[in-house]
Formats: sequence, C-alpha cells, structure tokens
Amino acid sequence: MATELYDLTIPVLVRALHILSAILEKGAAHAEAQGIDPATLTQARLAADMAPLIKQVQFVSDTAKGAAIRIGGLDPVPMADTESSFPELQDRIARTIAFLESVPREKIDGHEDAEVILQTPGGALTFTGRSYALGFVLPNLFFHVTTAYALLRQAGVPLGKLDYLGPVTA
Amino acid sequence: MATELYDLTIPVLVRALHILSAILEKGAAHAEAQGIDPATLTQARLAADMAPLIKQVQFVSDTAKGAAIRIGGLDPVPMADTESSFPELQDRIARTIAFLESVPREKIDGHEDAEVILQTPGGALTFTGRSYALGFVLPNLFFHVTTAYALLRQAGVPLGKLDYLGPVTA
Repeated sequence: MATELYDLTIPVLVRALHILSAILEKGAAHAEAQGIDPATLTQARLAADMAPLIKQVQFVSDTAKGAAIRIGGLDPVPMADTESSFPELQDRIARTIAFLESVPREKIDGHEDAEVILQTPGGALTFTGRSYALGFVLPNLFFHVTTAYALLRQAGVPLGKLDYLGPVTA
Repeated sequence: MATELYDLTIPVLVRALHILSAILEKGAAHAEAQGIDPATLTQARLAADMAPLIKQVQFVSDTAKGAAIRIGGLDPVPMADTESSFPELQDRIARTIAFLESVPREKIDGHEDAEVILQTPGGALTFTGRSYALGFVLPNLFFHVTTAYALLRQAGVPLGKLDYLGPVTA
C-alpha cells in the first residue's frame, strides 16, 4: 500500500531527532570523560563559513517542525535559538519531538498536492506537499544530522555509522 | 494521493545523483582553476578513519542501485570500485542513473510490506520495503552526499547550501 504523507514525514523526523539526541549524548559524554570544554564541540564548524554544531541542531529542529507546520497549515511554534549547551540542545530536541508527536495524522495526510510555500532569503519557493517532503525536508533534515555527526566525529567523539543509522525498525 | 514506493525512491535517488554530479563538477573545476592536484580532493577525508571522497561517491551509487535491486528483486548490477578521478566518478554516477532510469515502476510499486534483507558486516538486517526506503536508503543516501559536499566545502571549493539542495522541482 502506498505511503501516506504522515508516514513519509512525522515518524521519519522523530526518528532522526532521536538519533541526533543520541549522537549529542555521546559528544557530551566524550567531553566530560576527556575533560574537554563542551563549547569546543558545540561551537565546532566544518569550515569557517559553515554553521557550528549548535546551529546544525537548531536547523534540524526548524526543518522538522517547519515540515509539520507548513504541510499541516498549523500555527508557528517559535523556539528561540538561545541554546548554548548540550543539555539545552537536548531540551530543544525533546520539545521538537513533543510537538511533532502532537500533530494529528489527519492534518498531514492528503496534502500531497497542496501548495507549500517556503520563504527563503533568496525568495519564495513553491512546492507541493510531496515535493516539499521529498525534495526539501528529508534532504535538509539528513544534511544537518550528518553535519552534526561529522563535526563530532572530526572532534574525536567515538561515533560510527550505526550511530547515524540508528536501530533498524522494520 | 499517497506516495507510491517508486516515487519515494527512484526519482529521489536520481535527483541526488544529479546533485552529487554537479557538486563534483565544481570540485574538479576548482582544482583545475587553482592548480590543485585533483587527488587532494578525491582522497580527502573528514577524519582519518572515515572514507575518502571517492568512496563516498561509490557509497551513494551502491545505496541507490541497491535500493532498486533489493526492493525490486532485480539481478545485481556490479560496478567495480576502481574509480580514481573526477571523470571516472562522473561515469560511475551516470551509469548508476542510467540503471535506475531503466527500472520499471511495476518492479517497485506495491513492495511496501515485502521483506528486504540487507547483509552487513554485522549480520543481516530485515526491513520491509517501506522501512528500508525511509529508515535506511534515504538517510544513507543523504549521509554520503552530504559528506561529499562537506569534504569539498572543507577543501575550499566554492559551494553553498543551494548546491546541495538543488533546483526546486515542485
């Protein structure tokens, strides 16, 4: 049976947020064990003009909640980008998951062909619900989770590919 | 209307391969323009124990063709991992796209609940067609495209987020 838009988005987003949370836990534990200032990790960047780890986590959160809000036509759920520590990032992730889990399936399903408009610094982008999910939300989500993983990996946190892929849920 | 498994996989994979191709083109052009040995880029790694750029591209190819083969129950399409230059990587990507575009929709659609077994060094993983697509193929695909992007970005290739997201196709 074909895949409903809810199943194509909400559980995938929630799963990625749990995986990101577990990756960040390992980062925090590594800093603690090695006596590294956690800010060395939370402020790490892959390149001088790329966003630091904190921002990558905020982008994951924004991408995930934005998906539900734009597809479902829901009210914005503002979250101030004020996080500066691992515990605060975990709290941001938990609040994002709680919001996503509160979104009723009927707000998402059936919106495959509905217009979704994304305002960007470069102008408005027009998608359908499906093209937004497959051509923006999921690529962007995994971009920022992967970048967070790469930042911690490059900083020496003991992480492997299975931390990124997470448990198999058939 | 809910999303068929073909639409959830093949066009998303093809799109990511085109985007990866364009990113690599910019990498090759940068090496040429700056007089950098292209091997400096193709052998770049984010960490000593992470795979170099060439391998990231091979992983994207393997993930993409493996998705069609495993979901569709198709014969393997072996591609020797012998690439060592940007043109060879482009050829690998082109062959992968050509294969994916040859897969008939009817081989993929309807396999949402069919068993998919993935052999890994750590043992066999059992998925359904849908959980494999959403919980393995797409996360893994975007992991390796993002890592390729990050490697080139870190090496100074002039790339931005829009290179990764690609053109909007509503």
